[in-house]
Amino acid sequence: GDFARIDHQRQQRTGFPEVIWGPGKTPQQIAEILERMRPHYPCVMATRISPEVFEVVRSRVGGLHYFEKARICSTAPILPPQFPLQVGLVCAGTADLPVAEEAAVTLQLSGFGVERFWDVGVAGIHRLLSVRDRLEEMAVLIVVAGMEGALPSVVAGLVSVPVIAVPTSIGYGANFGGLAALLTMLNSCAPGIGVVNIDNGFGAAMLVAKILRSLSQRL
Amino acid sequence: GDFARIDHQRQQRTGFPEVIWGPGKTPQQIAEILERMRPHYPCVMATRISPEVFEVVRSRVGGLHYFEKARICSTAPILPPQFPLQVGLVCAGTADLPVAEEAAVTLQLSGFGVERFWDVGVAGIHRLLSVRDRLEEMAVLIVVAGMEGALPSVVAGLVSVPVIAVPTSIGYGANFGGLAALLTMLNSCAPGIGVVNIDNGFGAAMLVAKILRSLSQRL
Amino acid sequence: GDFARIDHQRQQRTGFPEVIWGPGKTPQQIAEILERMRPHYPCVMATRISPEVFEVVRSRVGGLHYFEKARICSTAPILPPQFPLQVGLVCAGTADLPVAEEAAVTLQLSGFGVERFWDVGVAGIHRLLSVRDRLEEMAVLIVVAGMEGALPSVVAGLVSVPVIAVPTSIGYGANFGGLAALLTMLNSCAPGIGVVNIDNGFGAAMLVAKILRSLSQRL
Amino acid sequence: GDFARIDHQRQQRTGFPEVIWGPGKTPQQIAEILERMRPHYPCVMATRISPEVFEVVRSRVGGLHYFEKARICSTAPILPPQFPLQVGLVCAGTADLPVAEEAAVTLQLSGFGVERFWDVGVAGIHRLLSVRDRLEEMAVLIVVAGMEGALPSVVAGLVSVPVIAVPTSIGYGANFGGLAALLTMLNSCAPGIGVVNIDNGFGAAMLVAKILRSLSQRL
Amino acid sequence: GDFARIDHQRQQRTGFPEVIWGPGKTPQQIAEILERMRPHYPCVMATRISPEVFEVVRSRVGGLHYFEKARICSTAPILPPQFPLQVGLVCAGTADLPVAEEAAVTLQLSGFGVERFWDVGVAGIHRLLSVRDRLEEMAVLIVVAGMEGALPSVVAGLVSVPVIAVPTSIGYGANFGGLAALLTMLNSCAPGIGVVNIDNGFGAAMLVAKILRSLSQRL
Amino acid sequence: GDFARIDHQRQQRTGFPEVIWGPGKTPQQIAEILERMRPHYPCVMATRISPEVFEVVRSRVGGLHYFEKARICSTAPILPPQFPLQVGLVCAGTADLPVAEEAAVTLQLSGFGVERFWDVGVAGIHRLLSVRDRLEEMAVLIVVAGMEGALPSVVAGLVSVPVIAVPTSIGYGANFGGLAALLTMLNSCAPGIGVVNIDNGFGAAMLVAKILRSLSQRL
Amino acid sequence: GDFARIDHQRQQRTGFPEVIWGPGKTPQQIAEILERMRPHYPCVMATRISPEVFEVVRSRVGGLHYFEKARICSTAPILPPQFPLQVGLVCAGTADLPVAEEAAVTLQLSGFGVERFWDVGVAGIHRLLSVRDRLEEMAVLIVVAGMEGALPSVVAGLVSVPVIAVPTSIGYGANFGGLAALLTMLNSCAPGIGVVNIDNGFGAAMLVAKILRSLSQRL
Amino acid sequence: GDFARIDHQRQQRTGFPEVIWGPGKTPQQIAEILERMRPHYPCVMATRISPEVFEVVRSRVGGLHYFEKARICSTAPILPPQFPLQVGLVCAGTADLPVAEEAAVTLQLSGFGVERFWDVGVAGIHRLLSVRDRLEEMAVLIVVAGMEGALPSVVAGLVSVPVIAVPTSIGYGANFGGLAALLTMLNSCAPGIGVVNIDNGFGAAMLVAKILRSLSQRL
Ligand SMILES: Nc1ncnc2c1ncn2[C@@H]1O[C@H](COP(=O)(O)O)[C@@H](O)[C@H]1O
Ligand SMILES: Nc1ncnc2c1ncn2[C@@H]1O[C@H](COP(=O)(O)O)[C@@H](O)[C@H]1O
Ligand SMILES: Nc1ncnc2c1ncn2[C@@H]1O[C@H](COP(=O)(O)O)[C@@H](O)[C@H]1O
Ligand SMILES: Nc1ncnc2c1ncn2[C@@H]1O[C@H](COP(=O)(O)O)[C@@H](O)[C@H]1O
Ligand SMILES: [Mg+2]
Ligand SMILES: [Mg+2]
Ligand SMILES: [Mg+2]
Ligand SMILES: [Mg+2]
Ligand SMILES: [Mg+2]
Ligand SMILES: [Mg+2]
Ligand SMILES: [Mg+2]
Ligand SMILES: [Mg+2]
Repeated sequence: GDFARIDHQRQQRTGFPEVIWGPGKTPQQIAEILERMRPHYPCVMATRISPEVFEVVRSRVGGLHYFEKARICSTAPILPPQFPLQVGLVCAGTADLPVAEEAAVTLQLSGFGVERFWDVGVAGIHRLLSVRDRLEEMAVLIVVAGMEGALPSVVAGLVSVPVIAVPTSIGYGANFGGLAALLTMLNSCAPGIGVVNIDNGFGAAMLVAKILRSLSQRL
Repeated sequence: GDFARIDHQRQQRTGFPEVIWGPGKTPQQIAEILERMRPHYPCVMATRISPEVFEVVRSRVGGLHYFEKARICSTAPILPPQFPLQVGLVCAGTADLPVAEEAAVTLQLSGFGVERFWDVGVAGIHRLLSVRDRLEEMAVLIVVAGMEGALPSVVAGLVSVPVIAVPTSIGYGANFGGLAALLTMLNSCAPGIGVVNIDNGFGAAMLVAKILRSLSQRL
Repeated sequence: GDFARIDHQRQQRTGFPEVIWGPGKTPQQIAEILERMRPHYPCVMATRISPEVFEVVRSRVGGLHYFEKARICSTAPILPPQFPLQVGLVCAGTADLPVAEEAAVTLQLSGFGVERFWDVGVAGIHRLLSVRDRLEEMAVLIVVAGMEGALPSVVAGLVSVPVIAVPTSIGYGANFGGLAALLTMLNSCAPGIGVVNIDNGFGAAMLVAKILRSLSQRL
Repeated sequence: GDFARIDHQRQQRTGFPEVIWGPGKTPQQIAEILERMRPHYPCVMATRISPEVFEVVRSRVGGLHYFEKARICSTAPILPPQFPLQVGLVCAGTADLPVAEEAAVTLQLSGFGVERFWDVGVAGIHRLLSVRDRLEEMAVLIVVAGMEGALPSVVAGLVSVPVIAVPTSIGYGANFGGLAALLTMLNSCAPGIGVVNIDNGFGAAMLVAKILRSLSQRL
Repeated sequence: GDFARIDHQRQQRTGFPEVIWGPGKTPQQIAEILERMRPHYPCVMATRISPEVFEVVRSRVGGLHYFEKARICSTAPILPPQFPLQVGLVCAGTADLPVAEEAAVTLQLSGFGVERFWDVGVAGIHRLLSVRDRLEEMAVLIVVAGMEGALPSVVAGLVSVPVIAVPTSIGYGANFGGLAALLTMLNSCAPGIGVVNIDNGFGAAMLVAKILRSLSQRL
Repeated sequence: GDFARIDHQRQQRTGFPEVIWGPGKTPQQIAEILERMRPHYPCVMATRISPEVFEVVRSRVGGLHYFEKARICSTAPILPPQFPLQVGLVCAGTADLPVAEEAAVTLQLSGFGVERFWDVGVAGIHRLLSVRDRLEEMAVLIVVAGMEGALPSVVAGLVSVPVIAVPTSIGYGANFGGLAALLTMLNSCAPGIGVVNIDNGFGAAMLVAKILRSLSQRL
Repeated sequence: GDFARIDHQRQQRTGFPEVIWGPGKTPQQIAEILERMRPHYPCVMATRISPEVFEVVRSRVGGLHYFEKARICSTAPILPPQFPLQVGLVCAGTADLPVAEEAAVTLQLSGFGVERFWDVGVAGIHRLLSVRDRLEEMAVLIVVAGMEGALPSVVAGLVSVPVIAVPTSIGYGANFGGLAALLTMLNSCAPGIGVVNIDNGFGAAMLVAKILRSLSQRL
Repeated sequence: GDFARIDHQRQQRTGFPEVIWGPGKTPQQIAEILERMRPHYPCVMATRISPEVFEVVRSRVGGLHYFEKARICSTAPILPPQFPLQVGLVCAGTADLPVAEEAAVTLQLSGFGVERFWDVGVAGIHRLLSVRDRLEEMAVLIVVAGMEGALPSVVAGLVSVPVIAVPTSIGYGANFGGLAALLTMLNSCAPGIGVVNIDNGFGAAMLVAKILRSLSQRL
């Protein structure tokens, strides 16, 4: 059990518990880390957990919650939002949903309210226009897109809300594993878009959660 | 004068004269090639001709026409369109205009009618929506965009007209000289977009001209 | 069944039904989407469907047609062409055939006539020369090539018909998954070639179908 | 004067005036656009304006303000902050200062208070530790870094404030024009970092301004 | 048995035995090479040996030692250090441990003393600060890091000891298989960092062993 | 004068004198090296010498020969071929001529006969077909091409003569300084093509000269 | 059986039969093509044939020869050389042997004599020096190398024989699938090296065979 | 004068003064920083200083020393070595000398003895063999190489001394600004090579100086 030193001070420093990154860990290791961390934090979560891995983890650790689309398991359920702020999650394709759900569930487990805008891609822009007013009501938007990744540019040109963009690795050929979408988002002609790593729904949620928490404390 | 063998058969084969590509040629060489080709073709044009180069060429060759924004010089003026088809040229930023004009003037010198839609980028999508009906009337659209290059995707999602996309090298940083826009266009989630090389307004016009000519002959 | 919002307006806007992209979807999901869309469109098709996936889909949805080489399944058969225009499909290697067939069947299901020119690569140019006259009769050519991807350049230098080029990921080493062929096609010294994404036979067909439909309506 | 269509609605939609991007425009064009926009907005600014360009612009347009380190000129001065929130600007090297100042002045012209933390790079981490408490007081941090771009990771590991990271093109060799710093920031092991394009100080400021404005309205 | 010519002179020339690189060799080949080399050297080792491969090798060759975390098997055990110098091994994440252990065990089998500093990444810099004095006592440091690879820069800014940096392929998305960490280390603003190939813990250990041996002989 | 150690043994070992590579050397340095080497070799040559540089060199060193198109200067003239073998130089575009001439003159100064086939690119394949029989008579072909670099593939598919391919940096956009042509040549579906570095006409000539010399001695 | 059109004229044009490239073909397809081609050529060969694939092919086609290390199967055995010329095959690592053997067996099946120089890498240069005189006797050298790919440079600096270099994909990390070795060979400071695609032992052999055949006919 | 905060503690922490990196600084800024730092350190140096820049700096700051080949200026001369250890500097081409000299002079100003081995590249390996014994006497070797960058591999295969490799940007075409040499060095099959950034002679010297200083204190 000495393969990882738990960073107990981090929650104090950063406001969030250390989250377990699933890939490259055996279900046994994930179970053990969950057990060790659970007593110290109100909520411990693990990301990139497939249903198969979760089955093994659950057989060793009781009382876990699993969010299949988001591939997240946690020691606590989603509770009613603790903050009066809504985060909008925007996503075009079915294939991008796991990344978008990873962001949504991370935010919900962190106490924030989330509204989902699925299947509103640029290939049929009327779908996006029809939800424009609701988008404008969100405090921050997380926009998830693969293939050419144009959605954040279009959204940022439509509404005044800040946009955090998540490129996904969905695509093929000259997509180069999400590089195309990543470059699109970094080069957006609509200023005011922050970008995170390819497929990093969790990172986008953490950034937004830090923003909401920091601003809530100061306003 | 033996540095280039003129391809007299090409016009018969392809329907278009050989065009002179300016870069890497001295004004003297451009002047000499223009003189040699002029007797054989109704219209000879040279591309990527700066005003400074044109001054030298004009001092040696009489009766030339110069299109400054397009950086094109030609032995014939733009005449009224010979075909009943309109090509729409769509472009977002001022900096992309030289590439868009290269396409427009090439088409006009080839006998086609052109309608220009400038400054209709995705950072303010209402401008694009306001011209949607006119875009739908075009036979083909050439969409020119730099930076993240999202414009062709959005246009192709709005109208049923085929789209030829031209990425430009406008941008900086992770734009990598137009690579970002090129990848965006190749990965478009709106199917039915044909892409040409970065900054290749001429090539887009040639493709469209071949399409219009081929279909006009067969319909 | 709410994982994808069907874009019923798209066919009106773009002239084509929404096509199902197979990769990343379970056979069950594909079957369900086919069932839901079938009542609304004369023809619904799904691409990148392996024989194994098709077996499962067929066991759940009746009356499907399967085109194995093209990896396409559809709710309608190929009917006699509705347009008086022929599209030529040109391809060099056996390994590129699935991509070429994806383009061919997509066009045929869209009502266009197709002529196939297989095994006419540049490594034995006499084979290409021997079909030159028939190529010249086509309204548009789709040229599919892997490895160094030189075929579209050579074809566009031989005939006056517009060329849509499809690079494939066939090759190895410094091919980099089709990047070599893609760059070759974008840099062609024969102007007037439109390029689509690596392996995107479907996209090439959609572009050509839009071209033929748009021009047919206007001429 | 018809080379650019002013987007009068954008300020309403996005909360900020359209800013003039200097590169690729002549001083005459910049002067003309400034004149045309000035009557419509309380503050119009132009970025990437060298002292030489500014001299020409100033000779044509009266009453301008110039911020040399930031390479920004504007029609209004920096006024006392209108918001009770401070943005921390963090930067390591002298060479990165123009990018950091571009962000700082953009925020100040937008009505926000800014605190500068210059010369606090990771090569001497004690300098960063000595300002840690003041960093923790900021509402948001913009961290600018070239070369290996490790500074945002270290800052995000030290404080709970959200971090917007700006890679710069400072460096040489395997830096590849800022690519190294960009990749570092995207791959940060400290979650919750939003990244903008290389050298895009303006974009970082716009994102932060949108965040502060959106949250101020909702809290 | 003639598939590899043993380089008997190399040990004399370089001070180290030829090591067997496991990947691409069958367990049978590895067993045979071990048997042939064992009589000639005090210690023969093989790297990148999975537990499964080791099982087969052990069934054919007696008296082997296996270091599972390091994925190394050898014909000799780790003996007490023969040199009065300590090498510090520094590593942030659990996932980087195999690479760090490959370096550690290689050094120990070569007769050097090693001290391990695991789980001291930049996302929680206080952990690194708390071991700073012990790091300063080491003769050389090997710093192993994946993801953004910032750890060597930070360590080199904290202590005066020379740093050999090992990027790992741990990460995803814009990590590009370790490229991000590699570029970070090459561009470090803290001068005096030597870099080896991605995941090359063995190479880092060999470099350090050569340094210690060369200097020990000359001082 | 001690900045370069002349490799007197190389001519014996390799059959060719050491050639001076011009870039990065001052005209004075080039003149001095020429003077020092001239007594030892029948022919010393320098490559990448612009007319301006040659003027300075000639003012210091007497009896030099200059080949302007090839950008080569030498201490000996081109003499009648000493070998009964002809090398064919094939080239498509005017812009590629300097690279092709560098190869041609290097071969001629090395005593080989050269036949030039200029302006025979793939955009008009009939020009290539019309010289096919003469190409077949050559002992070896050097094929120089920029842009998409398809020429060597087509030539190697037409004739049985071995082909050495030289990509050039001529092109723009997605050409990436000759990378597109280089990849095309490496991936050729016509087997039996050897490739040299971008713009390396000299290297191609050296390879061919070594081939001809080696085979002449052994046959 | 109509999936590939046999290029009967190619042998006349190029001097060699069409070879079957195994990857992407089923054993059944390979068997069928072998059967169809065998009556027309003295020797038909297929490359990249694993032992498992060969078992199936052999069960359907009689009288085949299999060269396991080279992964080649053929309809004819290796016969005594028909030419008085020797080709030297040079290779450093065990892992590169399949590529080197592919080249060797292709040459032997084409009637040429081959001498193998295995395990002579740059990491122990004395091994290479000890075979230098025998290398100098070869007509042409094929040098195969993975990892950093320095071997061809060193060989070309040692002997006057022309060198054809084959990079392999052996390596890891910053090797990028053979890219490192490929770039090394293209940039060699020893002029006169021709390079083929990564892992393309077959292509190197074809180039050398064409060279030997062409020169033998002309000298 | 407040544009840079001097890191007075760094010398204590790292054993070396802060060095001024010339690029991007005006001669005036360099002069001012030199003046400010000089009172605090026995030796302050500035790198990448061209003769033209030095002329301006010298006119403002007295008593400076300039090393033209190394492009370094300093406030102290090179003194006799203070350590009983020699560092060997190995370099192949004239064009790489500035980088090699940057390393050499940095070491000499730091009190170490240096021996230069210039013009010993792999294209004529006998020159390297003739200095092998003297190379073996060095404590550490710094090997500088451009183009294909094979020299460090060969040197590390010849001697037992540790090698620090410096790739340079010398080359063209597929060299990609030093990337080819960098990858070669990182992938070396001779283990025990540490690599620094392209052209970073200073960084290599700093690493070696830290190694010598650390080991001298501990042995
Ligand atoms: N083979 C294909 N290649 C590229 N795009 C495709 C292909 N097949 C379908 N598509 C596109 O993918 C979209 C359907 O994606 P989805 O909603 O995920 O099924 C359709 O609108 C098509 O435009
Ligand atoms: N883990 C490793 N990483 C890098 N190089 C290694 C590793 N293990 C062994 N080597 C090198 O690979 C060589 C052995 O290769 P081989 O002869 O194929 O077994 C040895 O000389 C080592 O220098
Ligand atoms: N190992 C190989 N590497 C590269 N090209 C090959 C190889 N084997 C066969 N080829 C080429 O592939 C062509 C056959 O492809 P196919 O018609 O698909 O069997 C032949 O003409 C050969 O030139
Ligand atoms: N030639 C050089 N190559 C790489 N780094 C250098 C070089 N010269 C100076 N440096 C580093 O750059 C830092 C100084 O940067 P600055 O504060 O901008 O002058 C010093 O701490 C050195 O570590
Ligand atoms: Mg959809
Ligand atoms: Mg605008
Ligand atoms: Mg074939
Ligand atoms: Mg500093
Ligand atoms: Mg941890
Ligand atoms: Mg021409
Ligand atoms: Mg070996
Ligand atoms: Mg030399």
